[in-house]
Amino acid sequence: MKQPIKGFSKLTKEAKLEWLAATYSKNPEATIAFLQSYWHEDAKVQKLHDDFIENTVTNYYMPFGVAPNFKINGKLYTIPMAIEESSVVAAAAKAAGFWLERGGFKASVIATKKIGHVHFMYEGAVEKLTTFIEAITPKFFEDTEGLTANMRARGGGILNIELKDKTAAMDNYFQLEAHFETCDSMGANFINSCLEQFAKTLTSEVQKSDLFTAAEKDIQIVMCILSNYTPDCVVRAEVSCPVSQLNADEGISPETFAMKFQRAVRIAEIEPYRATTHNKGIYNGIDAVVIATGNDFRAIEAAGHTYASKDGQYRSLTHCEVKDGQFRFWIEVPMALGTVGGLTKLHPMVKFAHQMLGNPNAEELMCVIAASGLAQNFAALRALTTTGIQKGHMKMHLLNILNQLEATEEEIAEIKAYFEDKVVTHSDVVKKFCEVRGIEVPTPKVKQ
Amino acid sequence: MKQPIKGFSKLTKEAKLEWLAATYSKNPEATIAFLQSYWHEDAKVQKLHDDFIENTVTNYYMPFGVAPNFKINGKLYTIPMAIEESSVVAAAAKAAGFWLERGGFKASVIATKKIGHVHFMYEGAVEKLTTFIEAITPKFFEDTEGLTANMRARGGGILNIELKDKTAAMDNYFQLEAHFETCDSMGANFINSCLEQFAKTLTSEVQKSDLFTAAEKDIQIVMCILSNYTPDCVVRAEVSCPVSQLNADEGISPETFAMKFQRAVRIAEIEPYRATTHNKGIYNGIDAVVIATGNDFRAIEAAGHTYASKDGQYRSLTHCEVKDGQFRFWIEVPMALGTVGGLTKLHPMVKFAHQMLGNPNAEELMCVIAASGLAQNFAALRALTTTGIQKGHMKMHLLNILNQLEATEEEIAEIKAYFEDKVVTHSDVVKKFCEVRGIEVPTPKVKQ
Repeated sequence: MKQPIKGFSKLTKEAKLEWLAATYSKNPEATIAFLQSYWHEDAKVQKLHDDFIENTVTNYYMPFGVAPNFKINGKLYTIPMAIEESSVVAAAAKAAGFWLERGGFKASVIATKKIGHVHFMYEGAVEKLTTFIEAITPKFFEDTEGLTANMRARGGGILNIELKDKTAAMDNYFQLEAHFETCDSMGANFINSCLEQFAKTLTSEVQKSDLFTAAEKDIQIVMCILSNYTPDCVVRAEVSCPVSQLNADEGISPETFAMKFQRAVRIAEIEPYRATTHNKGIYNGIDAVVIATGNDFRAIEAAGHTYASKDGQYRSLTHCEVKDGQFRFWIEVPMALGTVGGLTKLHPMVKFAHQMLGNPNAEELMCVIAASGLAQNFAALRALTTTGIQKGHMKMHLLNILNQLEATEEEIAEIKAYFEDKVVTHSDVVKKFCEVRGIEVPTPKVKQ
Repeated sequence: MKQPIKGFSKLTKEAKLEWLAATYSKNPEATIAFLQSYWHEDAKVQKLHDDFIENTVTNYYMPFGVAPNFKINGKLYTIPMAIEESSVVAAAAKAAGFWLERGGFKASVIATKKIGHVHFMYEGAVEKLTTFIEAITPKFFEDTEGLTANMRARGGGILNIELKDKTAAMDNYFQLEAHFETCDSMGANFINSCLEQFAKTLTSEVQKSDLFTAAEKDIQIVMCILSNYTPDCVVRAEVSCPVSQLNADEGISPETFAMKFQRAVRIAEIEPYRATTHNKGIYNGIDAVVIATGNDFRAIEAAGHTYASKDGQYRSLTHCEVKDGQFRFWIEVPMALGTVGGLTKLHPMVKFAHQMLGNPNAEELMCVIAASGLAQNFAALRALTTTGIQKGHMKMHLLNILNQLEATEEEIAEIKAYFEDKVVTHSDVVKKFCEVRGIEVPTPKVKQ
């Protein structure tokens, strides 16, 4: 029976490893050596990585790949992608190459407003509160001047503050809703600090005001927090070409391809079961770049999926039109990210990713990432509507199984050739591997 | 002007690095050395990581931290977390410690069914198609016997196959919808392979049938693909205790804490702006474990967010009840994951993560991950409704800025003490740092 541990976070890293190995390994020394083998060779660099989070014991390796030949707004990029899933980088590179010869990606930022709320409870006349909030709005700006000075110098700051009456949804529930322009930073700390100050100002100004009764003065702050739902921080990316140029796939006419592709997108627009998977594929492309560039993929996923359900049904984030002989395929997606702050200047691999992209500002990075998402979706739909996706996946699956079996290069070549025209299943691969190596096939474990 | 590169994927890894460095660095040699410094010391281990995806040039380090003292269904776990965001591991550990003394987490798997579709177009009488599909259903099972043998031996397989008439949403649109039990594997390859076979069977059986007219026989397969939306693969985790035991925070009574906490959850249930951020926080806890255990966080995010919007409005995934002096807080969330297949047996750090968790099966891992998400949300709401979240964030923010400035341990201690009762802004920290070190404050860059 394992025992709880007190004060674990206060242990040195070495002591943490020792406890972990002693508790979870039959060979503690080997486990410590194993965990250490994933450390960076330079202790100073490793210390930097350790300090990003708490209780760090080592590094999880996420493969860092690159997808070249992305032409976006006329500029050529090699896109950095950190992702554990096979086929994603290959698909991105393939779609990039396809569109490189057809005008590339056009992307633009539609809006960059961030949003945050002071959620509070007020039991009293709504009109009084409305009048009061209007009257003290300059005070909200004033009291946050110290916090916003830097952001204002960069061209951002608080855009506006307004009262939202949410009492229809919940008794006595109101919000101070504020919009922010955070320039090249994601802005979470900035926004949350401003909101916490708004709450302080609200509370103290209410006390001073003679507008309210004693009971009305008992405003209760529930919480101060930015919203990760950013429908006003949105980027659009598009590819288009004459239908006649959609001629890269054998055995299918450009017209049929366009029709089938558009139909697949339409299905993702109307059917939530498909939309979820469709958008999941888009985020394969988006998150890989979000991670490589040091941004927060949970925030970007949450915003995108809420956006996908904004009209009451969960739908595709991409859309397609075939009209007058022209094929158009585009994405519109919220994306709150930063190119300064957070990990962007701290994580050496993130710095390198930014360098590869030419140290873009936030808007340019939004364009690149939207293009990556669109490219991924194009490649997925192209495979799905022509050869099916299993052909490509199975190649990778086969290679993974063979690596697991520690097959040699020669064995891999022979077994790959054998499966060229066959369905890859784990048991068939093991069987063939044993045959090639001339060993006995292990008996499969059957569930009791 | 950069030029496109042909055949990049065919280059050796060394040649890829050379091209990348020559194209994106002013000091190619240093860049190559930098990228190589992130490789594993053992070339064989590095090769394994390289092969997970395409065009791998190095590893992105995601900090791997651990959160001890999670009591889930009476068993004690130390949870592995791979995440780049500060405060997440600390919050998980804090919530784990809080609930350890209050009975721990109770979690259970509600259902484990996966789902997939053959999307197809059929122009003809619906009744005929219905009769036909019923008649050939045994054939779908028969034709996939080779594919499903292994899964059946493990207790899983195809559960059922039915026709879905989607013509109300789109003319001539139908689905073969199939449910699967994939045991301890996530099952994507298995499901997609079965679906592609269903499509072949459907197409060939239609041709053989004398039920249809020539026109009706022209069934068009749109695509065969699993759905990442898995409302029937769901896990539930809960914490509960007498309200009187919610006594860990100073300056707030247990009753007030319970009331405030419940109100904050309620707001996330009714307000999409808040729900998005609320669920984002839950996925901080979920994704960190999903990544550490070699699962696909995009799939799990997509399912969860669609689930959050299933009644037409995007809502919280957690819920809270305070009744008869008892506090209950729970999460219900779809989670399709695997403990075999994919990276689970391939990635050495993933293998270690599974080992730490006692090599759980898929259902046990679902319980652990749901508990991690719930813990994260508990910690976030506790901070938000008591001290606010900025206090904790700002400590980390300060440390990150000081690391960036390469402050010494002594400088860090002095500056941390100074900011104990002050708001942390980047400019103020730089100012204080320069004062402590006795150097001139750099002039801030102003946007042109």
